[in-house]
Amino acid sequence: MSRSHWVQETLVVDTPGKGFTNISARVAAIVAASTIVTGQCLVFVRHTSASLVIQENADPAVLRDLERWLSGLVPEQRAWEHDDEGPDDMPAHARSALTRTSEAIPISARCLALGTWQGLYLWEHRQRPHRRELIVQLSGIT
Amino acid sequence: MSRSHWVQETLVVDTPGKGFTNISARVAAIVAASTIVTGQCLVFVRHTSASLVIQENADPAVLRDLERWLSGLVPEQRAWEHDDEGPDDMPAHARSALTRTSEAIPISARCLALGTWQGLYLWEHRQRPHRRELIVQLSGIT
Amino acid sequence: MSRSHWVQETLVVDTPGKGFTNISARVAAIVAASTIVTGQCLVFVRHTSASLVIQENADPAVLRDLERWLSGLVPEQRAWEHDDEGPDDMPAHARSALTRTSEAIPISARCLALGTWQGLYLWEHRQRPHRRELIVQLSGIT
Repeated sequence: MSRSHWVQETLVVDTPGKGFTNISARVAAIVAASTIVTGQCLVFVRHTSASLVIQENADPAVLRDLERWLSGLVPEQRAWEHDDEGPDDMPAHARSALTRTSEAIPISARCLALGTWQGLYLWEHRQRPHRRELIVQLSGIT
Repeated sequence: MSRSHWVQETLVVDTPGKGFTNISARVAAIVAASTIVTGQCLVFVRHTSASLVIQENADPAVLRDLERWLSGLVPEQRAWEHDDEGPDDMPAHARSALTRTSEAIPISARCLALGTWQGLYLWEHRQRPHRRELIVQLSGIT
Repeated sequence: MSRSHWVQETLVVDTPGKGFTNISARVAAIVAASTIVTGQCLVFVRHTSASLVIQENADPAVLRDLERWLSGLVPEQRAWEHDDEGPDDMPAHARSALTRTSEAIPISARCLALGTWQGLYLWEHRQRPHRRELIVQLSGIT
């Protein structure tokens, strides 16, 4: 009979600074290595200056547009009170607040049930490269 | 004894173009048809130009205000690099990034545990009507 | 053998009006009182004028900056159609749409797997104090 399974792994992602890293394949590999057929994949970022979005995976211009637009919406040249780590410090927190600390994706037939054009991205909001720690939490039936 | 159950269904929603479709009743019906008493309902949109929000279900003026305000925050008349499908293409991606690809709602006593004034909405961000595919993933105990 | 457990509790939070209430300790206490070792903690707000964010828990200036910046992004002095409860009514809905109605956090080794600098906050968007009702839904294995 089917039983609930819970799998938890840490995913370390090195970012090149401000912008997107497609982590769909790495998360999909964790799902494939599990025996879960139907369930949920929760991805959680353990930081407040990087976040997650699910966005188009086809035209890279979409990602460039998103980065330019969000940089305009949350400008560095504002009188931020908190600027301990430079002018990109507080905008990184605001950008995280507007996007997502976690994403939950259904698992169907042993695969992430993303749409054809969907990719899961870690969005780095700091100017310099960072090493980011994520948790991938799978649950479901085998 | 109680056992964990996992139910997954596809929900197809035809949108009338830019704006809100209340999907609370359709999702609640899937919960009611299951035997889950306590658990979680995850709703996931398989697109990057439509998204989910939980918003007030009483005064329709709230939804009109939200649509006008978000249209102003993410204007079509901006020099977007990606405009393959027209001026509403890239704003739709940005609007999705600001809102949510999935919503998770607790199930209590066999019902969605939404507050009295909360409704679950699919927010279409493209000008023209679209057929959207969602996944409703229930888990919990019976 | 390990079995899935589901625990659901209501959390009532009295807010002091616009701004942040750190609810990490109260949610962590519910996790600690359960026997779940590995799993997920879902926190859900049953309102559309208060929301959740995970943000920095160290420098209070981060929270002041976030509040000032979001108040500017969603101004009260705009011709909102819906203003039944005053000028802060509709901005509260828009602020909620930009942030989150629920947050899901992995549970690892019987603890919330928040990063060192992460705190879970209820963000009140109305000017006056409010009593807010949240649901904390734990699931996982013991």
